[in-house]
Amino acid sequence: MSSKWSQLLKSSLEANASLPYSKYVQLATVKPDGRPANRTVVFRGFMQDDETSLTFVTDRRSRKVQEVHLSPYGEACWYLPVTREQFRLSGQLRIVGSDNNEEQWMAARRRAWAAMSSAGRSQFTWPTPGEPRANDEAFQAKASEEPESNFCLVVLSVDACDYVQLFENKREIFERGEDGLFSHQAVNP
Amino acid sequence: MSSKWSQLLKSSLEANASLPYSKYVQLATVKPDGRPANRTVVFRGFMQDDETSLTFVTDRRSRKVQEVHLSPYGEACWYLPVTREQFRLSGQLRIVGSDNNEEQWMAARRRAWAAMSSAGRSQFTWPTPGEPRANDEAFQAKASEEPESNFCLVVLSVDACDYVQLFENKREIFERGEDGLFSHQAVNP
Repeated sequence: MSSKWSQLLKSSLEANASLPYSKYVQLATVKPDGRPANRTVVFRGFMQDDETSLTFVTDRRSRKVQEVHLSPYGEACWYLPVTREQFRLSGQLRIVGSDNNEEQWMAARRRAWAAMSSAGRSQFTWPTPGEPRANDEAFQAKASEEPESNFCLVVLSVDACDYVQLFENKREIFERGEDGLFSHQAVNP
Repeated sequence: MSSKWSQLLKSSLEANASLPYSKYVQLATVKPDGRPANRTVVFRGFMQDDETSLTFVTDRRSRKVQEVHLSPYGEACWYLPVTREQFRLSGQLRIVGSDNNEEQWMAARRRAWAAMSSAGRSQFTWPTPGEPRANDEAFQAKASEEPESNFCLVVLSVDACDYVQLFENKREIFERGEDGLFSHQAVNP
């Protein structure tokens, strides 16, 4: 599946490719106490065969895994400096961990692991994130070839996109209808 | 009031000043339906005499004003590319509009308006954000010298800062105690 907003996003990522951090995006979720959480994540590409779903990775021990369990909604906010565009992408989040037995998701998690650098992989062997700082030796392990048990794929299935282009002050809203397809409308910025 | 994290943030902003968009930060709030919202805002400086409060501006007609009315919590997430640092700043949000009569906040709103460019000011005369796109003529008005009635100051009074520096994989958590001062602890990234 594709959509006009995902085509726009692909073009923007190409136009911003000179900046390695153009793949960094801020993902908001809601904490168990009802307050917002927000952190930078790295975009790991669209789901195979579904360009309306974005993928990220996370550690099973990170807070966002608990948060998504209680409130499975997210909004990713992307600012792309070269083209001065913002994408706000909201939808449902799915965490795919080592306990997932559905072939589609197991395969997607394996593909995401295969695409990770060895430095990226080794982070999943590190001591528990957020706990008091461990000694430097605790950060020396090398990850296995198979996905580490702490490694989770995160999938954002987008239901709405709010797109702004600042050079011309253009803004468009894309919304998924009951037929699964996106409508779009030009709105005031 | 100052704190170690606000000193870090000031140094980072200086070190990233070559990138005009280093003042862009993503601010998450919670919508009336309990789902997260996330958008890019421009950092407008610390509150005078309080470097633990950050200021932004917004339009009274934007959704975040309603959101903050129902759920006054926010988390700003900043990624600074030159120094590879992330600041996650959570706390309470206050919207200071034209109906605010408290001298401290009225003065802060006036100062924020005084610091706006004329292009920035004129946005507050534009047609209602998010409504179907108006004709180009609707975007031609010039703002008055006094703060436009749609102009609101947004103040994030920070209670916690989660700081990460990716070059050395350092992470520190700063939390405001009951005495109003911040404690800090090194934790695993």
